[in-house]
Amino acid sequence: MQTPDGEVLERDYKLYDLGNIVLQSGKTLENAQIAYKTYGTLKDDKSNVIVYPTWFTGFISDNEWLIGDNMALDPNKYFIIVVAAFGNSQSTSPSNTGLGPNFPNITLYDNVVNQYRLVTELFGITSIELVVGWSMGAQQTFQWACLYPDMVKRIAPMCGSSKTAQNNFVFLEGVKYPLLNSVDFHDGHYTSKPYKGLQSVARVYSGWGFSQPFYNVEEWKKLGFNSLEEFEKGFWENFFYKRDPNNLLCMLWTWQHADLSSNPVYNNDQRLALASIKAKAYVMPCNYDLYFTPDVNQMEVSQMPNAEFVEIISIWGHFAADGLNPVDTQFVDEKLKELLSISV
Amino acid sequence: MQTPDGEVLERDYKLYDLGNIVLQSGKTLENAQIAYKTYGTLKDDKSNVIVYPTWFTGFISDNEWLIGDNMALDPNKYFIIVVAAFGNSQSTSPSNTGLGPNFPNITLYDNVVNQYRLVTELFGITSIELVVGWSMGAQQTFQWACLYPDMVKRIAPMCGSSKTAQNNFVFLEGVKYPLLNSVDFHDGHYTSKPYKGLQSVARVYSGWGFSQPFYNVEEWKKLGFNSLEEFEKGFWENFFYKRDPNNLLCMLWTWQHADLSSNPVYNNDQRLALASIKAKAYVMPCNYDLYFTPDVNQMEVSQMPNAEFVEIISIWGHFAADGLNPVDTQFVDEKLKELLSISV
Repeated sequence: MQTPDGEVLERDYKLYDLGNIVLQSGKTLENAQIAYKTYGTLKDDKSNVIVYPTWFTGFISDNEWLIGDNMALDPNKYFIIVVAAFGNSQSTSPSNTGLGPNFPNITLYDNVVNQYRLVTELFGITSIELVVGWSMGAQQTFQWACLYPDMVKRIAPMCGSSKTAQNNFVFLEGVKYPLLNSVDFHDGHYTSKPYKGLQSVARVYSGWGFSQPFYNVEEWKKLGFNSLEEFEKGFWENFFYKRDPNNLLCMLWTWQHADLSSNPVYNNDQRLALASIKAKAYVMPCNYDLYFTPDVNQMEVSQMPNAEFVEIISIWGHFAADGLNPVDTQFVDEKLKELLSISV
Repeated sequence: MQTPDGEVLERDYKLYDLGNIVLQSGKTLENAQIAYKTYGTLKDDKSNVIVYPTWFTGFISDNEWLIGDNMALDPNKYFIIVVAAFGNSQSTSPSNTGLGPNFPNITLYDNVVNQYRLVTELFGITSIELVVGWSMGAQQTFQWACLYPDMVKRIAPMCGSSKTAQNNFVFLEGVKYPLLNSVDFHDGHYTSKPYKGLQSVARVYSGWGFSQPFYNVEEWKKLGFNSLEEFEKGFWENFFYKRDPNNLLCMLWTWQHADLSSNPVYNNDQRLALASIKAKAYVMPCNYDLYFTPDVNQMEVSQMPNAEFVEIISIWGHFAADGLNPVDTQFVDEKLKELLSISV
């Protein structure tokens, strides 16, 4: 439970102690913890595991729209572990360590190798039915599949790529600078929440998160807003006001530099990393996603031995796979059911 | 001639005195002036006129790439009048009146009815062979054609729409807020140039001005840059550092609220305004334009009695019609030659 200011009122997730971990940068993150929450019951033979990482800015609870009775991610059937990325305010983050702007850079690899520790050390799991994630969660999904090809049976990266494309990096520069240059950011040493900076982030993100026709047909009315300005404030500003700016910048760095092959295993060989993925994959972009564009996923699918390109056709753009639009949610859920039904 | 700070070193354009003008808002702009520059010689019968308004942030000289010997806009043949929109720093603007953030809102209509005064009162022109413009210049082009249907024989609006679509408005909110909320904007009462705010604007614009594949194939290398960061600084930041922030906000308001029918002639009836355009029109979007999207132009063309949809196919996106890419410039120039050759 979080207040609009992001304050944790009641913790409904658990923390796994990693101890001091050495990051890819060579820096040590002391007393690192991964926040996670599980849904359902782990079978005795541990054969019903789904791993579901969080996205950029996403809290664990933000993943719950895809979990439910009679859905693909049915807790009556599966043991679903939602794992929080570093910097999300629940796992070790700038905001909960006091490190603020001095928090070290976290890579995609740093996130996933430590999620692997949680999954294996704590639960003793050796096989995963599905890794699924949206956006930066999709990037972690790709990373899981190539680092642990014999463990991950299926993946469904939604609206995300295995490596951040340059257009995507550029979009994020346009998110970052307005925050860095805002009147209340104070180089990350703010003592109260920099609402002006977060407002700028919100207004920039607004144009990117959904598609052009989403606005032109005023699709936001389906979310209960009566005017564009009400939507900008009620959806976008409210969304970012809940976030901590240094946390945003931590995760933004991870996203900008995400590359499934930028690690000791694959040495920046993206083709090799993609070719090493054994999992049956449904790679699911949205046709109207403005930053994780489908052409990048098409290239990836062509390099993966067991992947299908499954496009979400929706003017909700990047947010098609965030549970906001029932039509898209139904499509995604059906495709995940289909994927889970395939014998691997 | 302008320094990187936008200071005018040498004025190579003329000013037309409009006197005190009453704007659509009801406010009076005192001692208003339109900056203009002409190329070529006006024939005795005044039958060789082309009008070419400037774009958002554009100086008069920024239009010159489309004018030249043996080009469609050949000054040996035509009398080309480049007219500067209010707020561009050359026509009456926040920066040259001392009004700064108190400058009144300027509409598309305010711009064009006063450009009409320049063209008719100063030159006695009654017929125009072509009105052409890019981006916000295209919006003025549409406005010219419906306000003066018996005067304007041809139009070529490039990468611009007759009415600003909501997605476009939202994109501009993402340009505006980072400036308003920047550490050095001071509510428009800055005493030195707010480079931080302009840097944010530059970084936001970067993702929108060109297309996703433009970045992904590193097309910016064709502009002589060796790294993305060099391009961000050398192209985008340098671009906006030349601009005055209050001028930007003035023109941004004009753009956000642009609607060819929002005036006493058409009373917000866009269909009627479009249907009233008699000019032979080549409506020329770029297929990869991320804010002036081609679908909007297709709708417009369907409402106009004498219009053709002429798409520029280019990963240069919105900037395809800004003279930066020789291939696109050649395409545009050929299409303008074709349009000018059609008897009207």
